[in-house]
Amino acid sequence: MAAGPSTARGGLMVERLVVIGGDAAAMSAASAARRRRGPDELEIVAFESGNYTSYSACGIPYFIGDVVPDVDMLIARTPQQFARDHTIDARIRHQVTAIDTDRGAVLVRNLLGGTESWEGFDQLMVATGAVPIRPPLPGVDAEGIFGVQTLDDGLAVKAALERDRPRRAVVVGAGYIGLELAEAFSAWGVAVTLIDRGPTPMATIDPDMGEMLVEAMHGFGMTLRLGESVTGFDTDDGQVRAVVTDQATVPTDLVILGLGVEPNTALAHAAGIPLGSAGGIAVDQRLRTGVEGVWAAGDCVEKFHRISRRAVTIALGTHANKEGRTAGINIGGGYATFPGVVGTAVTKLCDVEVARTGLGEAEAEAAGFEALSVAVDSTTRAGYYPGAKPIRTKLVAERGTGRLLGAQIVGQEGAAKRIDVLAMALWTHTTVDELLNIDLGYAPPFSPLWDPVLIAARKAWQQIETDRHIA
Amino acid sequence: MAAGPSTARGGLMVERLVVIGGDAAAMSAASAARRRRGPDELEIVAFESGNYTSYSACGIPYFIGDVVPDVDMLIARTPQQFARDHTIDARIRHQVTAIDTDRGAVLVRNLLGGTESWEGFDQLMVATGAVPIRPPLPGVDAEGIFGVQTLDDGLAVKAALERDRPRRAVVVGAGYIGLELAEAFSAWGVAVTLIDRGPTPMATIDPDMGEMLVEAMHGFGMTLRLGESVTGFDTDDGQVRAVVTDQATVPTDLVILGLGVEPNTALAHAAGIPLGSAGGIAVDQRLRTGVEGVWAAGDCVEKFHRISRRAVTIALGTHANKEGRTAGINIGGGYATFPGVVGTAVTKLCDVEVARTGLGEAEAEAAGFEALSVAVDSTTRAGYYPGAKPIRTKLVAERGTGRLLGAQIVGQEGAAKRIDVLAMALWTHTTVDELLNIDLGYAPPFSPLWDPVLIAARKAWQQIETDRHIA
Repeated sequence: MAAGPSTARGGLMVERLVVIGGDAAAMSAASAARRRRGPDELEIVAFESGNYTSYSACGIPYFIGDVVPDVDMLIARTPQQFARDHTIDARIRHQVTAIDTDRGAVLVRNLLGGTESWEGFDQLMVATGAVPIRPPLPGVDAEGIFGVQTLDDGLAVKAALERDRPRRAVVVGAGYIGLELAEAFSAWGVAVTLIDRGPTPMATIDPDMGEMLVEAMHGFGMTLRLGESVTGFDTDDGQVRAVVTDQATVPTDLVILGLGVEPNTALAHAAGIPLGSAGGIAVDQRLRTGVEGVWAAGDCVEKFHRISRRAVTIALGTHANKEGRTAGINIGGGYATFPGVVGTAVTKLCDVEVARTGLGEAEAEAAGFEALSVAVDSTTRAGYYPGAKPIRTKLVAERGTGRLLGAQIVGQEGAAKRIDVLAMALWTHTTVDELLNIDLGYAPPFSPLWDPVLIAARKAWQQIETDRHIA
Repeated sequence: MAAGPSTARGGLMVERLVVIGGDAAAMSAASAARRRRGPDELEIVAFESGNYTSYSACGIPYFIGDVVPDVDMLIARTPQQFARDHTIDARIRHQVTAIDTDRGAVLVRNLLGGTESWEGFDQLMVATGAVPIRPPLPGVDAEGIFGVQTLDDGLAVKAALERDRPRRAVVVGAGYIGLELAEAFSAWGVAVTLIDRGPTPMATIDPDMGEMLVEAMHGFGMTLRLGESVTGFDTDDGQVRAVVTDQATVPTDLVILGLGVEPNTALAHAAGIPLGSAGGIAVDQRLRTGVEGVWAAGDCVEKFHRISRRAVTIALGTHANKEGRTAGINIGGGYATFPGVVGTAVTKLCDVEVARTGLGEAEAEAAGFEALSVAVDSTTRAGYYPGAKPIRTKLVAERGTGRLLGAQIVGQEGAAKRIDVLAMALWTHTTVDELLNIDLGYAPPFSPLWDPVLIAARKAWQQIETDRHIA
């Protein structure tokens, strides 16, 4: 039943790349490999258990909220396009259920027909992504409780909104996905309650910055239950009816689990592909796993955090794409490395933009840095220019050296992407005293004379100078 | 008549800082010096020939165009505020007409009373700014021909608009100020003609990018006369009636000279303070001139361009403020350096945003680099997200090494400030292959999955790799 790992075609040996997965990392790798090696040298087959290839997972909340009305708009390339334009055989509704690294084959189940077959490979790309964290609480498997990770998940949530017209929804976990879905439900006129264990929303930003979100969310008419832990779900005839916390029972028609995701490593782990300390598949800078000929990329792998210098797992399409590209270049016979991440992320909740990069205060301490932080309030444009919006910028810097360790921004239109300058500063080990003089663009419609990030850097440097003077 | 350079006050010697100028560099220096040394140690007097201190020169076009309705909105601090909050004696309508560096005194004319007096100094800050270039063409001094550099200039132009209600205006020179004023006049319903010698508007961006502006300007109903040189002005009873070029006579009611500015060095030069190769006052990193005790900052000084490694003159408030701050810290007994510029600038023309940093193609060649360039079209947000706008990003990079040398952006809302990432990349000597993997913020409302600057870096690197492979 199995194809041999290599097949002869016109007298030439054609290598075979099998890709597990069909989204960002998977298809970036496939495409990058194809660019270097044509179909006469490399056969490429991708197995995707869902119904879609190469879609924007980050766009799902906006599809649910009808900001993006048509699901097709989220799809960058269909299997038909991969076949036609890249000679890549992307098979949707095909689930890989086992990897045999010794034989060089994967066991594939056709989810439509139910048939199983072994498919041989010379090189294997593992891009199994992430799975939503689903705590084993009573009632967690009831109808009406959704995790949102794949496009199929997103379609299920939108179908439930359209079919059931829920009046109330509870979002458990006030992280990126949780906030984005809270906004999406609000757009449907659904009364949204967010429940989070933490003291403020978004554990990835410091509480002083998260506090600004609390105000905003109240302004948007959302109900916040902070410092509460979910202990289970009340159900009725298999349908969720309420979320039970350590403090209350919150009636609801629909629940979103926004507790984050974890690397989907079950398949790799079962096959003996080594995992790392952070729980993802361990890869080197070229995206090689610990098994010869087996590569991995995207949400299922660990990334090197360039500031904490530790392995981390972060599920983000932009990393997945870059890693996929890197793996694909290497699979295609080129040389490329993925240098790691600094933990940059941006999102928005209605008109409030949130951004972060590097380490928060507590993270910096945990990573062994002696850190200080400053926060400054400014505007996104010159104060006198129409449309100037508030922006608060927080910097975390190393005492003594002034090395930037992290940054966070909360503000309105034009605020969030300023994080990129600070991500660059982290990447390049720029100190706040150097940063404050950097030649950023200035004109009244775009920035105050001192850009908010420069004001923050100036204040951080003043603090560091004062500290050193006293010491 | 002259005060002695140092005055005894309560038995202590009080040093005296005289500042020539009252805007960005001048008052930043005064304020920074004051922060380090109180009035008991340092007396600070600033002489400003115009009517205003610390105003946003960059905001003048928006005041003229009524985007900013009230002139007071452009003023950060009045002389009264400086006196009250900082014990800085800022005297408007006082013009310094001579510097005697040997005696340590400046000759000051009170423009109201007409009286002149010598004012002693221990330290002198020269912040005389820039003056609009005014070619000695026939009729150039006629009524109705304006340069726009100071707030008083701006008030004069707005008064002319309100009083004379011109139907037609000609802007000579399609640089930043020229474009911004063209927009301002359009807002008044004035028919605007822009005349420029170059093949495309804005000599600071390459012609292929400037071409995009031509289309936009036609769309805004402006008339463009490119490749034409102004030879003079027709006047009638001392009032300008037409602009004469080497190709046509263009009737007009009002003329703006937007031919750029040059450092205002007459006073310094007459006093023997050395100028540099680019025509500005020569200063070191601490903003010291060649004369002991004399400092200079802002549009009147040369800046070190970190990519071309040459002295340049660039008139920009953001540089002036940083230089002023640096000088003030040093005058105040601290230590600070201004590390130079990379030539970042942003502006907008109606809804078209324009940004540049570093070297253009021709500048890179002139600076001795072997350069290549790439340009990519993308969108400011994910393509499927509402409000995604077109953005073209051009990179200039060194062949072989991939070192970024310059970048230009033309696009719509959300395009221009992306130049800051590229300015950071220039500043930190980042190569395009490193840049393409950098962890910039991504979410659909803010960026495509690959941010436009990363797409451009990726394309530049592909080009460089291909070149090296062939070589």
